[in-house]
Amino acid sequence: MSNPDRSRGVRGDYGYFTPITTRWHDNDLYGHVNNVTYYGYFDSVANHFLIHEGGLDIHHGAVIGLVVSSGCRYHAAVAYPEKLEGALRVNRLGNSSVEYGVAVFREGEDDAVAEGYFTHVFVDRGTRRPVGMPEGLRKALARIAGGVEQV
Amino acid sequence: MSNPDRSRGVRGDYGYFTPITTRWHDNDLYGHVNNVTYYGYFDSVANHFLIHEGGLDIHHGAVIGLVVSSGCRYHAAVAYPEKLEGALRVNRLGNSSVEYGVAVFREGEDDAVAEGYFTHVFVDRGTRRPVGMPEGLRKALARIAGGVEQV
Amino acid sequence: MSNPDRSRGVRGDYGYFTPITTRWHDNDLYGHVNNVTYYGYFDSVANHFLIHEGGLDIHHGAVIGLVVSSGCRYHAAVAYPEKLEGALRVNRLGNSSVEYGVAVFREGEDDAVAEGYFTHVFVDRGTRRPVGMPEGLRKALARIAGGVEQV
Amino acid sequence: MSNPDRSRGVRGDYGYFTPITTRWHDNDLYGHVNNVTYYGYFDSVANHFLIHEGGLDIHHGAVIGLVVSSGCRYHAAVAYPEKLEGALRVNRLGNSSVEYGVAVFREGEDDAVAEGYFTHVFVDRGTRRPVGMPEGLRKALARIAGGVEQV
Repeated sequence: MSNPDRSRGVRGDYGYFTPITTRWHDNDLYGHVNNVTYYGYFDSVANHFLIHEGGLDIHHGAVIGLVVSSGCRYHAAVAYPEKLEGALRVNRLGNSSVEYGVAVFREGEDDAVAEGYFTHVFVDRGTRRPVGMPEGLRKALARIAGGVEQV
Repeated sequence: MSNPDRSRGVRGDYGYFTPITTRWHDNDLYGHVNNVTYYGYFDSVANHFLIHEGGLDIHHGAVIGLVVSSGCRYHAAVAYPEKLEGALRVNRLGNSSVEYGVAVFREGEDDAVAEGYFTHVFVDRGTRRPVGMPEGLRKALARIAGGVEQV
Repeated sequence: MSNPDRSRGVRGDYGYFTPITTRWHDNDLYGHVNNVTYYGYFDSVANHFLIHEGGLDIHHGAVIGLVVSSGCRYHAAVAYPEKLEGALRVNRLGNSSVEYGVAVFREGEDDAVAEGYFTHVFVDRGTRRPVGMPEGLRKALARIAGGVEQV
Repeated sequence: MSNPDRSRGVRGDYGYFTPITTRWHDNDLYGHVNNVTYYGYFDSVANHFLIHEGGLDIHHGAVIGLVVSSGCRYHAAVAYPEKLEGALRVNRLGNSSVEYGVAVFREGEDDAVAEGYFTHVFVDRGTRRPVGMPEGLRKALARIAGGVEQV
C-alpha cells in the first residue's frame, strides 16, 4: 500500500459535501465541539443527500432509514464559530441497507478533522420492517460509492 | 402608527445576519424545527457578532456574557433541510448589559418566522460579578442599536 | 402583599414535578447549563404531564400542541451533574390553547433557579389548524391551574 | 461459551449505572430517541463516574479527558418519556487513556437497547498533551474493569 499512514482521510475520499454553520452550544465545557455533535453533523449530511439527491420524503414517504450502528474517530479539535463541511460517501450498498463513510472538514482544509461511518437500514415507516430501498435512492447512493475501505 | 399590524418583523428591523444550516435533529417528532432550537440559533447569531465584530474572546477573555432573560414568539414553522438566517439588533444598551432583538428568517424571505429577545449581563469570568462592558464591544453593539421597540 | 420581593418562585407555586437528570453537554463553554437547555426541560415537563395525566398520544393522536410563544428568566446557575426538577402549572386555560408556568428547581431547594412560561395551541395533526382541546386534557390541565400571575 | 448469541449485552456486563430521564426532543422525526442522543447518554454516565467516583474536577482540574474514538450498535428503539439507565464498564485501561464500554437500558429490563464504546485520552487542560491519569481516577476505573471483550 502506497500510503501506510492513511489514517486521516482527505476530501478526495468523499463524493458529497454540505456546509455546516457551527453553533454556540456545539462547544462544550472544554471549549471545542463536543464529540456527540459530530454525529449530528453526520446525520445531517446523509439525510441532506437522501432528500435532495435520492428523493427521500422524510415526512410522508413509505420508507425511512434507521441507524443500526455508527462510529467516529476524532483527529483534531474544532470550535464554534468555525465554518465546517460535512462529507459523505457510500462504503457498502446492500439491498435494504447502506453503510456511509462520513467526515467533517474545516472550510478550506483537505484533512478531515473527524471521520466515521454509520449504517442505515431502510424500513417500512409503519411496520419498521426492512424493505428493499427505492430505486431512485439506490441509484443516487451508487453514484457516491467509492472503493474506499471502511473507516 | 402607520402599520398597526406590525406583529411580524422584517429584515429591515435587524442589523446583522448570519446563515444557519439546519440539521436533521432540529426537527422534532412533529416534523418541524423544535421551539427550543430557535434559542440556539439566537445564541449563535449574537455570539457570532460579539466575537467577530466586538472582539469577545469566549475562551480566555476576562469578560463573558451571561443570559438573564429571553423570550420568543413563533410565527411560522420551518424544517430541516431548509436554509435559514439568524438576525440580530440591539434593543437596549446598558452599562453592563444589553438586550438583543433576534429573529430567524428563511433564506430569501422578508418576514421573520420567529422573533425574540434576550439579555446578556457582562460579568467577570472568575467572580461572575457584573462589570462594565469593554469599549470595543459597546461600540460594536451601538452600531446595530435600532430605534425599534422591544418584541 | 406580604412578600414584595416575590420575584423568585417557590415550589408551592407549581402543581406538577418531574425529575431531570442533567447531561454532560447541558453545560456550555462557561461551565453551567446553557440558557437554551432550560427550554428543553420546560418542554419535557409539560409533555410529561400531557402524556401521563392528560392522555395525549404524541405519536398517533389527532391533536398535537404547538408552541407559539415562550420566555424565561434565569435566577441562578446550575451545572451538570446536579440533579434538578422540572415544575409545571397552568397560567391560563383557553379553549384551544394553554399557557403554562414552568420552572426548574435544584433537588431539595425551594427557590426556582429559572422560571418561564410557554403557550401551546392545540391543532389538528394533519391540517395544523387550532381545535378545541380534548376533554381529558382540559380536565387534567384544570387541576394544576393556579391563581398565580404570569411570569 | 454457553451463549453463542451474546450479541446483546446485559446488566451483568456493566459495573456502574445512572438513571436517565428522557426529554421531549430526544425523540426525532421518526418518533424514537435519535441515534446521536445515545452518545450524549454515554458521555454523561462516564463523566458522572469520573466526577463522583474518580474525583475528576471538570471545571478546574489540571487533567481533562478528550474523546478520540467512539461507536455504537443500536438493538432496539426507545422513546421519550421512557425511563432509561446509562451503564459503564472499563474495556481497557492504559496509562493515559481508557476505553469504556457503555450501554443504555430501559428501566427494569436486562437486555441493552444500545451498546457502544468510547476512548478518553487524559490530557493537560492547558497544553492538551497526554498525561498519565491521576491515581484516584485510575483506581476508580480499575474497579469497573471487566474481563468483557470490546463491543
